[in-house]
Amino acid sequence: MTDGLPMAVPAPGLPSRVRIHEVGARDGLQNEKATVPTEVKAEFIHRLADAGLTTIEATSFVHPKWVPQLADAEDLFPLLGDLPGVELPVLVPNARGLERALALGARRIAVFGSATESFARANLNRSVDESLAMFAPVVARAREEGVHVRGYLSMCFGDPWEGPVPVAQVVRTAGALLDMGCDELSLGDTIGVATPGHVAALLTGLAERGVATGALGVHFHDTYGQALANTLVALQHGVTTVDASAGGLGGCPYAKSATGNLATEDLVWMLDGLGVDTGVDLGRLTATSLWLAGRLGRPSPSRTVRALAPDQAQSPEE
Amino acid sequence: MTDGLPMAVPAPGLPSRVRIHEVGARDGLQNEKATVPTEVKAEFIHRLADAGLTTIEATSFVHPKWVPQLADAEDLFPLLGDLPGVELPVLVPNARGLERALALGARRIAVFGSATESFARANLNRSVDESLAMFAPVVARAREEGVHVRGYLSMCFGDPWEGPVPVAQVVRTAGALLDMGCDELSLGDTIGVATPGHVAALLTGLAERGVATGALGVHFHDTYGQALANTLVALQHGVTTVDASAGGLGGCPYAKSATGNLATEDLVWMLDGLGVDTGVDLGRLTATSLWLAGRLGRPSPSRTVRALAPDQAQSPEE
Repeated sequence: MTDGLPMAVPAPGLPSRVRIHEVGARDGLQNEKATVPTEVKAEFIHRLADAGLTTIEATSFVHPKWVPQLADAEDLFPLLGDLPGVELPVLVPNARGLERALALGARRIAVFGSATESFARANLNRSVDESLAMFAPVVARAREEGVHVRGYLSMCFGDPWEGPVPVAQVVRTAGALLDMGCDELSLGDTIGVATPGHVAALLTGLAERGVATGALGVHFHDTYGQALANTLVALQHGVTTVDASAGGLGGCPYAKSATGNLATEDLVWMLDGLGVDTGVDLGRLTATSLWLAGRLGRPSPSRTVRALAPDQAQSPEE
Repeated sequence: MTDGLPMAVPAPGLPSRVRIHEVGARDGLQNEKATVPTEVKAEFIHRLADAGLTTIEATSFVHPKWVPQLADAEDLFPLLGDLPGVELPVLVPNARGLERALALGARRIAVFGSATESFARANLNRSVDESLAMFAPVVARAREEGVHVRGYLSMCFGDPWEGPVPVAQVVRTAGALLDMGCDELSLGDTIGVATPGHVAALLTGLAERGVATGALGVHFHDTYGQALANTLVALQHGVTTVDASAGGLGGCPYAKSATGNLATEDLVWMLDGLGVDTGVDLGRLTATSLWLAGRLGRPSPSRTVRALAPDQAQSPEE
């Protein structure tokens, strides 16, 4: 029905290429209650690579007590083998996690910071400054090993306890993460409340502080349906790294088909339509999300997945 | 959890006020299989007005054979009474429909044209030019009566039979509708395939043809999740009339929670966040959509509705 669509019509002032940082295998799966077999995770990542994704966050070296779903990191990482041209960053919460990742040969890591005190307390059990102090030696050690470091910054727009988050507060923590040696930052709208003007204001604030746009990624949640509009504004401000999750994996636990992460398919549809190169084959990616939805036993919340495969997306099995 | 959110952060270059043309009661309900009682429709419209919507498309004076759900137009319209400050446009397919609407005192009508030959044939059983010839006397007669005329233009971006629709083809038909006396046009992305660059190209093409932006509304479908990003680009081009459907009413019939129309709540969330005035109370509007979802027996597909009321939105009854 929609062969040849979307029609590619470039918009002025946008980048010609965007790097998608695929988070489904880590950020998406970590919220799954039922244990996903390690072999399924490995196949998922291989399929994502086959679909053309080149940055696929693979797992987390957090203590198994906190994220049981990703307790198999040591078993999973060797199964991924050599994927030419594909980066496989892993999350490390602290020095111990970094050593585990280094021992397996990880070449990209990510640390997970917070822009707000409340979330730093809730998620990291320490203040923002204490968490930065914890990350500093991790980042330094990673860089000694020539490992690329991404800094996640959560709650950049709103926080469930604190409400709207001031731009200056985010700029301060972002600056601290870059100053300690992070190669890139991912600006997270963890609860999905950002709107386009707020995104523009934060990116302007970071630029005024001297942060290079090339060091920034954006990580929007689609909780209120705003993720793609926010992404568009980020692209208009020169951002070329966008986080997304295949099939929209990582939905809020409270609602069966409400979404958390921006679905990679919805993002690719927009970028294909804008003539922005991602290297991703939308058909293969959709097939991958449908395959995983079958394994997880529920449909993908991605609008594009549902539109391209209305029958399959509604049934728990392909 | 999200009191005070979204935070209002205006973006440069956007209008200060947007008029939402609410289509749920007509475009949304017309796809419902089970008959919705006339009293429920009337209460729905009253609740929408209470929520602050000022342009509420009420019904259609199409032959009952084609849209049985709206066969009660003559019964519904008198139930709406006098809603101060609220416009209640109605769809009229032809001269006969116009006379029915005029007899009831309608002060705003809409005709429904197509940018493509295939959809004109499928929906109107005539060519584009034949349909324009059919509309001309309807528009002329409405204007004689001082009635405001909206022209819907379907398939402005893609068509299920023809694929991508050339901008020049849309501009030609849009110009014809305005030349015959339509006060405003609603540019429809009937199958949801538009992306932001395509929207910008169409609006630029219309501006080059001399069409005043104030005469244009946009009508996006969220089939592939693109509606809000497309809306943002339209606002950046000066458009101040946006069509939306409360709760995302009017979903594609093939998938239980796939969406057709842009949900008014998702739109209002973005506009609230941008500090763009709509006059709409998001809480009241969401309550209205939840109430109607209970009557219809299925959850709203609006992401904002689901996020604001995660429990209710999942159950068929309130």
